[in-house]
Amino acid sequence: MRLPEGVEWALHCTWLLTVARDRDALPARRLAEFYGLPEAYLAKLLKTLVRAGLLSATSGPRGGFRLARAPGDITVADVVEAVEVPSPLFHCTEIRQRGPVPLTGEACRRPCGIAQVMDRAERAWRQELAATTIADLVEASGSGAVTRVSSWLATLPRAS
Amino acid sequence: MRLPEGVEWALHCTWLLTVARDRDALPARRLAEFYGLPEAYLAKLLKTLVRAGLLSATSGPRGGFRLARAPGDITVADVVEAVEVPSPLFHCTEIRQRGPVPLTGEACRRPCGIAQVMDRAERAWRQELAATTIADLVEASGSGAVTRVSSWLATLPRAS
Repeated sequence: MRLPEGVEWALHCTWLLTVARDRDALPARRLAEFYGLPEAYLAKLLKTLVRAGLLSATSGPRGGFRLARAPGDITVADVVEAVEVPSPLFHCTEIRQRGPVPLTGEACRRPCGIAQVMDRAERAWRQELAATTIADLVEASGSGAVTRVSSWLATLPRAS
Repeated sequence: MRLPEGVEWALHCTWLLTVARDRDALPARRLAEFYGLPEAYLAKLLKTLVRAGLLSATSGPRGGFRLARAPGDITVADVVEAVEVPSPLFHCTEIRQRGPVPLTGEACRRPCGIAQVMDRAERAWRQELAATTIADLVEASGSGAVTRVSSWLATLPRAS
């Protein structure tokens, strides 16, 4: 069980768009270039983030992607769930209702203890992801990382 | 991203073997029958739990599977990790070391903030799974569930 690599890419791109939020929108081509990623796949992923309301997209020669919300209002969970549709990690198929002495549907209105533990663990996972915003990530990166990105941005023509 | 259905089966079978631990070993055929599961696949899964040290297996006419440890010494995490080899949910591919202004390996000795958040969330998930034992699950099932299993066990010949 593994998260798709798009989760890593989406989180890094959202981080980069936060650092770059005072300049023009950044096209997928530039984001792909910065991280050495395949542009076509990344462009699709960025559109997914637009549909999730995390980014906005503009077209035209100065078009590209920007944050659609303040970085303090975008959590890591928001990005993960935009890329990986939030279906439960554990699917209970109610095997206690099968076999020679099945429990009735009536008796199974509450999830079984196993499903409850799995659900509690998953909520703990999502809560941790929801506890950090993209603004927190940029702050934790330190000034070195931000300077590195800013220097690169400064080398780009304004409509790039 | 979804856990394999074998996780649900393995947890339920471990639960059943706990309830049945005062009688003979139970063969895969009986466990498959109780939950309406495919016997061949379940037998493979049970052997995985034997390799993980959670169950023991005996052969012969009275052979089958039993718990290898006390149910209070088997956590939900033990069973999940026996079925689903514990590789990280999130794989960091260090995309910060790519592109036109890459970070050096030297500068990346510590995981980036994104990998740290993902790792923290995963630890929270595993900690919740490790906080409940199979003995806890049986206790939480209540006497009704245990009586249901015991009644079924009583209908089986001793070497079944």
